[in-house]
Amino acid sequence: MQIKSEWELLGNIKNLINKEGLPKPKDLIQSIGDDCAVFTLSGSRLGLITTDISIESIHFRRDVSGFEDIGFKAMMGNVSDIAAMGGKAKYAFVSLGLPAGFAKENVLAIYKGLIKAGNMAGTIIAGGDISKAKEVIINIALYGEVKKNKLIKRSNAKIGNNIFVTGNLGSSMAGLEILLSKKRNITKQFPALIKKHIMPIARYSIIEELIDKFEPTSMIDISDGLLSDLRHICDSSATGFKLNEECLPVSKELLRYCSRLKKSPSGYALNSGEEYELLFTSDKIIKRPLILGKEQIPVTRIGKITNKGFYLIRDNTKIKISITGFDHFK
Amino acid sequence: MQIKSEWELLGNIKNLINKEGLPKPKDLIQSIGDDCAVFTLSGSRLGLITTDISIESIHFRRDVSGFEDIGFKAMMGNVSDIAAMGGKAKYAFVSLGLPAGFAKENVLAIYKGLIKAGNMAGTIIAGGDISKAKEVIINIALYGEVKKNKLIKRSNAKIGNNIFVTGNLGSSMAGLEILLSKKRNITKQFPALIKKHIMPIARYSIIEELIDKFEPTSMIDISDGLLSDLRHICDSSATGFKLNEECLPVSKELLRYCSRLKKSPSGYALNSGEEYELLFTSDKIIKRPLILGKEQIPVTRIGKITNKGFYLIRDNTKIKISITGFDHFK
Repeated sequence: MQIKSEWELLGNIKNLINKEGLPKPKDLIQSIGDDCAVFTLSGSRLGLITTDISIESIHFRRDVSGFEDIGFKAMMGNVSDIAAMGGKAKYAFVSLGLPAGFAKENVLAIYKGLIKAGNMAGTIIAGGDISKAKEVIINIALYGEVKKNKLIKRSNAKIGNNIFVTGNLGSSMAGLEILLSKKRNITKQFPALIKKHIMPIARYSIIEELIDKFEPTSMIDISDGLLSDLRHICDSSATGFKLNEECLPVSKELLRYCSRLKKSPSGYALNSGEEYELLFTSDKIIKRPLILGKEQIPVTRIGKITNKGFYLIRDNTKIKISITGFDHFK
Repeated sequence: MQIKSEWELLGNIKNLINKEGLPKPKDLIQSIGDDCAVFTLSGSRLGLITTDISIESIHFRRDVSGFEDIGFKAMMGNVSDIAAMGGKAKYAFVSLGLPAGFAKENVLAIYKGLIKAGNMAGTIIAGGDISKAKEVIINIALYGEVKKNKLIKRSNAKIGNNIFVTGNLGSSMAGLEILLSKKRNITKQFPALIKKHIMPIARYSIIEELIDKFEPTSMIDISDGLLSDLRHICDSSATGFKLNEECLPVSKELLRYCSRLKKSPSGYALNSGEEYELLFTSDKIIKRPLILGKEQIPVTRIGKITNKGFYLIRDNTKIKISITGFDHFK
């Protein structure tokens, strides 16, 4: 039978593991279904492991990004998953698939990018594997740690919680659009949009301050897009949400780009993936964006967790939204 | 520049990581260069992580193995890496790449095999990722643990140590040959050779007994082939070896197969990869194969660690051997 959708397939796999696999030991606090698996190391320390596969033409294109940037982004995507649990990434394990005739310089460029991102986040490449393949494949498994009282899962959002997001949204999607247009003069005018797509930086540097200030009830990183990832939180927490469109944080550059193209910035903000911003819920209240860290990252309140349904508030009107999200098999 | 060889490339990557990466923290006991990375969890407990990528047409072929067997073998290969450090595999993270039109049943068959092998070794699938790809890709990252005083690395073989191997050797290569010949009548006559290729079982079940009885100084699992893997031990330990050809353990079925084809069994024993037997060095002496575990696995002495050079003793003659081994990029 054909694969109908990624989510159906994941459901089938989960069922199979639950039915035929060994019973989950007490040590394994979180298995499939969050940004990372979580397991007990000692009384107060937890281990985190996440894995992500990046494949040429699906996840990256060499006509859009250089290999160093491709490596950088692959590592940052995993660092972001560890940060989304409240943790710190420690050791990375890199499997590469390389097509015949692939230049050694390109392999080393991928590694330069991996190392650069790892260095920023305090992460060391501690192992890996290499094979020939039909296309460039980068799989990263990342090990991290978090203190038990700092762990934040997806599944604990409470009705009435505020919804917050770090940084601003939408730039990655706009950056990709510009790059694909291959118009040099436009590329030059929107350097920050391009940079956000090519070299996004995960929010590992403000994670401790964020946890101290907000005591998040749930958290996820934005890799699929705000709507998709917020749905992950709500599905895991059995809640709904309402988002205030006018609160969505977007950069001046994105506003300028949208006004030029006569497009709505909120379309970008709601759907842009690979942003690697942190999306979280908390019962804290802030009146205006709070600025965290020496990088001066804003944290903005964008909506509220409700008991059910997914809604966007636009000009005081409640619009019901259906979320599709990217699906590899649709 | 073209990639000249896997080993040269790995050397370049290691140099780059050492030069540009963060300094190795004290906690990271073993990084790239053994079956697993090793890091401190608490005073007496160590964490182990290994990762392996399996790619269709390079590592497996669907005309030779069913998808359940392909999943089984991929998991066992990783379990074997953990066993080779003296450890126990706990949590597995599976990334799949699936070509367009790949049937859902085949994905679930891969998972059935992964689960079956995991169950045998006490391992749980705790996370993963799925993407579309041009070919079937299975990447497994496996987390395990070992007590500090049970850890066995590659790098500590001592001159004068005896060299031992579990089980018997050569069957996987012969099994693949038979399967590729596609002659049904031959397939039926050599079920154990076929099984060893299709569904090899790593030696996790006897690892504790083996460590207690032999106190190995170094250990590796045979994934590349006896000669290649023994060279890994010797390169890491700065030693040489001499192997006694007549001591190499081979099954009666392999002897029968070789006599039929008028081939030398030792060619198979020396070069067959994916055996997942344990190869180790120890100062213990045994007169005849020792039998371990309820599966009655023999452990056979096959040679000695020397100060340098790689030699095979055949009919009392010392033959110098050069080892090439499989290289993805040659």
